[in-house]
Amino acid sequence: MDRRTASIQDQAKRRKIYVSDNERPEIRVPFTEVVIGDSHSRSGPVPNPPLRLYDTSGPGSKPRNGLPALRRQWILRRGDVEEYEGRPVMERDNGRAAPARGGDAARATTDRPAQACSPLRALRSPSGKAVVTQRHYARLGVITEEMRFAALREGVDPQVVLEELAAGRAILPANVNHPESEPMIIGKRFLVKVNANIGNSSVTSSIADEVDKLVWATRWGADTVMDLSTGRAIHTTREWIIRNSPVPIGTVPLYQALEKVDGRPEELSWELYRDTLIEQAEQGVDYITVHAGVLLRYVPLTAERLTGIVSRGGSIMAAWCLAHHRENFLYTNFDELCEISAAYDMSLSLGDGLRPGSVADANDGAQFSELRTLGELTERAWDHDVQVMIEGPGHVPLHKIPENVALQQELCHEAPFYTLGPLTIDVAPGYDHLTSAIGAAVIAMHGTAMLCYVTPKEHLGLPGRDDVKQGMVAYKIAAHAADLAKGHPGAQAWDDALSKARFEFRWEDQFNLAMDPETARAFHDETLPATPAKTAHFCSMCGPKFCAMRISQDVREYASSRKIPVASAMSQGMKEKSEEFREHGSTLYVEPGA
Amino acid sequence: MDRRTASIQDQAKRRKIYVSDNERPEIRVPFTEVVIGDSHSRSGPVPNPPLRLYDTSGPGSKPRNGLPALRRQWILRRGDVEEYEGRPVMERDNGRAAPARGGDAARATTDRPAQACSPLRALRSPSGKAVVTQRHYARLGVITEEMRFAALREGVDPQVVLEELAAGRAILPANVNHPESEPMIIGKRFLVKVNANIGNSSVTSSIADEVDKLVWATRWGADTVMDLSTGRAIHTTREWIIRNSPVPIGTVPLYQALEKVDGRPEELSWELYRDTLIEQAEQGVDYITVHAGVLLRYVPLTAERLTGIVSRGGSIMAAWCLAHHRENFLYTNFDELCEISAAYDMSLSLGDGLRPGSVADANDGAQFSELRTLGELTERAWDHDVQVMIEGPGHVPLHKIPENVALQQELCHEAPFYTLGPLTIDVAPGYDHLTSAIGAAVIAMHGTAMLCYVTPKEHLGLPGRDDVKQGMVAYKIAAHAADLAKGHPGAQAWDDALSKARFEFRWEDQFNLAMDPETARAFHDETLPATPAKTAHFCSMCGPKFCAMRISQDVREYASSRKIPVASAMSQGMKEKSEEFREHGSTLYVEPGA
Repeated sequence: MDRRTASIQDQAKRRKIYVSDNERPEIRVPFTEVVIGDSHSRSGPVPNPPLRLYDTSGPGSKPRNGLPALRRQWILRRGDVEEYEGRPVMERDNGRAAPARGGDAARATTDRPAQACSPLRALRSPSGKAVVTQRHYARLGVITEEMRFAALREGVDPQVVLEELAAGRAILPANVNHPESEPMIIGKRFLVKVNANIGNSSVTSSIADEVDKLVWATRWGADTVMDLSTGRAIHTTREWIIRNSPVPIGTVPLYQALEKVDGRPEELSWELYRDTLIEQAEQGVDYITVHAGVLLRYVPLTAERLTGIVSRGGSIMAAWCLAHHRENFLYTNFDELCEISAAYDMSLSLGDGLRPGSVADANDGAQFSELRTLGELTERAWDHDVQVMIEGPGHVPLHKIPENVALQQELCHEAPFYTLGPLTIDVAPGYDHLTSAIGAAVIAMHGTAMLCYVTPKEHLGLPGRDDVKQGMVAYKIAAHAADLAKGHPGAQAWDDALSKARFEFRWEDQFNLAMDPETARAFHDETLPATPAKTAHFCSMCGPKFCAMRISQDVREYASSRKIPVASAMSQGMKEKSEEFREHGSTLYVEPGA
Repeated sequence: MDRRTASIQDQAKRRKIYVSDNERPEIRVPFTEVVIGDSHSRSGPVPNPPLRLYDTSGPGSKPRNGLPALRRQWILRRGDVEEYEGRPVMERDNGRAAPARGGDAARATTDRPAQACSPLRALRSPSGKAVVTQRHYARLGVITEEMRFAALREGVDPQVVLEELAAGRAILPANVNHPESEPMIIGKRFLVKVNANIGNSSVTSSIADEVDKLVWATRWGADTVMDLSTGRAIHTTREWIIRNSPVPIGTVPLYQALEKVDGRPEELSWELYRDTLIEQAEQGVDYITVHAGVLLRYVPLTAERLTGIVSRGGSIMAAWCLAHHRENFLYTNFDELCEISAAYDMSLSLGDGLRPGSVADANDGAQFSELRTLGELTERAWDHDVQVMIEGPGHVPLHKIPENVALQQELCHEAPFYTLGPLTIDVAPGYDHLTSAIGAAVIAMHGTAMLCYVTPKEHLGLPGRDDVKQGMVAYKIAAHAADLAKGHPGAQAWDDALSKARFEFRWEDQFNLAMDPETARAFHDETLPATPAKTAHFCSMCGPKFCAMRISQDVREYASSRKIPVASAMSQGMKEKSEEFREHGSTLYVEPGA
């Protein structure tokens, strides 16, 4: 069997399936199903059930067509939205550099994927409110299709989803203008989620690159993707990303607003920001980072830090506050911001603009002062029925991690925590996916609901395709480590299936069950490339004649075939058994291919 | 400046230095010194002191010559050893396959590096004891050269080293027949150490490969190296490794013993093992894994496990116990084993033969029963003044890690803990350096003294050169994360120096201070290859015109140049300052190369 055949076999054994909701068969939830080979006992083969894994990769698309609008009918059926013309796309939406590039920029503005249509927004109710958030429905006791979908995906009752949303302990990011998304939920009672950051910068990369990174990130399990573009064609890039994304898309509208004023923070204004907010809400952005907690009085608290302010949004707002000697306009206009968000169900991710940029600055006065304000803003957003999560650090040494979660949960009334790593050390640039996966696993075990991945390029450059994969895998590992530690129902079944396959030398099953089947297979082939090695009852560590796992299988068969009560094993004529074992001695050694 | 020039500059800024003991100038301890560039303030350049990093790479050697015998005079001056002829090297010492290969094996047996000379062992004292262990000296209150060396390396008083050794809370592995080693100490009050496993197998690799891996592992910070060879030329491979190793070498003598009986566990005997023990003690093995805790009555406790017995040594002893229906010969002959070890100062690493091989089996009855026996053996070894550490798992989910350390410390009377990972999940073959670095950081924070690395090839194949590097870097990260969390004096200075360089855009300093300078530099070059980028006051994440770090530097300069008392910053005419800030606005943007 050559590599190609193996890969085809691999696909047959790992396939996408859809599971329907019993009560609502049109709700079909995707899973990756892994077909597992039989175990072999002395009495013959024993079948192993297939395993279902959470699947974020979406139905697949040609980028120009976009994805099918899965949720559109659900949204329209609720009868609480209106289709309207929407804000016209302006040249400056594509970034400050756009006018200078003439034809290019014009083309970029009009060159949209086919799906784009008029935006939706909430109808104003008789009480004067325009709200279509999942929190709103949850508080009314309405289980939406989105909630059912997420519940089936998580393996929990829809009522649990509703309760967590209503209490604010979870969010279900689902802008009415991003009907292509497959609903998912972020909260500490659910599987730990991972966000991947993509986006171009003023220095490098293209739209096609970014759409490719989106697809690639969801292929590796990204639960949400943030488009942090700051460069050319910023509006158009986002349009392509959203139309092709099966996962919720997050942004930092402040970045685009800054592009519109040619990168000068002091020229920002609430009006310009508000316009950008509507622009993005109409495109379908599912959640936005808002640095509304960077208050003027907190800025000087960073002056004696080793690494000052390292959040881009935080430093933009700090610069604005200092330049104008006025309070942060995101804070002073927070209620209007919430009203706009509520009308599209754009969730808020309250940014930690004063997060520490080094272990030296972790858990300091600036960081925790801002966190206290984020707690206040959480309640204000909830008053508008807007869904909220809270962003967290950053760089935090291991022993200071639990305090971050405890304080966030307390000050922000159990709103979901969404942390960047944290990096546990500062001295390994080039390996920050790893320095931070350590912190991510620990902070998630303590209750963080979503982790923002870090790639190996952190602090050094922009992530390429392989960096996205390395970051994703590191963070899926961290998330799964936390799921196991939290005792998430079903999490350990995956480990047990793989460990059983490993113990029984079912190499193909081990590869198919692996988080990254291709890498596992390739690494095995490096040492033992021949096909028989994949069915052989040994591995390359011990070689064909002696094998630790093989021996312990014999120990087990030996003990269980005689039904030795474990506690009294010693007392039951072990002598006789030892002789039998010696006779079986030769079965310990299995030659390759035999 | 091309890559080669950069690399030369790099070498000049990162160099090996030796620091002498004040009282004993002949004790010279190696460090890597990083020369750091000036900070720049408005009043001119401000020098930064150089930073000294722990250095394990040794003085360097041509393999055929071996390393200088640093400790030989220290050992001889103590007047308590004798030189003797030693055990003759036999053909079977090179493994069961040796006779079959004729000429090859004969050559391998005699082809030893130049340094090899007659072995040393303890003289028998009038009281009948033959003991030359560092524990023995510590308990007599004698500070040896080895203790001074280790103390200077750790930045602590030699008395601390003596006390920890005397109490059994630390070990200083230093076989009198491995005088080439640079003394180091393993204990929870000291820096967390990392062991790298190397060694050939019956399937693959050569002597030259293994010596190369040894040098490579110490280049990346391996504090000790275990030679786990099971294949051809096993004695000769070890000879080359020890003669060229600046770090203590550990082995599992049982592996070689098994080779001598052609891989048949039931043919093992204490006599054969004892002979192998002396063979390895005379070569200079510094510590040995002994699976003396795998008692006959514990073996059936593994029968209902998901993954039975996964330790190679554990399964060998389990097979022997079952085949003979007798108690583990390592347990029944433990006192003689200690006497031999004491005569060479070969430290014991009590193996966890019943460690879990999957998260499902973590912290079970088999594992903790054996741990209790290891506690008993610890006290027996201490009675012989033998140095002891305890090996730990394996596979353990995050929430079960603290219990492992707490129980080990309690049952084994605070003897140092030496753990393999643990892997926190089972489902990511190909990434187990990462799944286990998470567990390693956490277990080390809780008190593990030394971590045994895991490479990306774990469970899949034998590690090659790059796997050794990836495993080492992952584990140095885990160890440093724990050092920071434990508040080890001096640990954070490294992070602070790098973070300061990062904040001040001193790219070259950032690379030189990195755990892996080459990778950090290469990653930066991928996005911004031109030389000016390395002196530019921006990075590729934000681009040249807006930069988060640049802004917060301005915030800091702004605040500090006016000596704003942090708490009252708000009340002091911020208006006036805001105008000044606006005037300085243009200094926010620094063009590349400017």
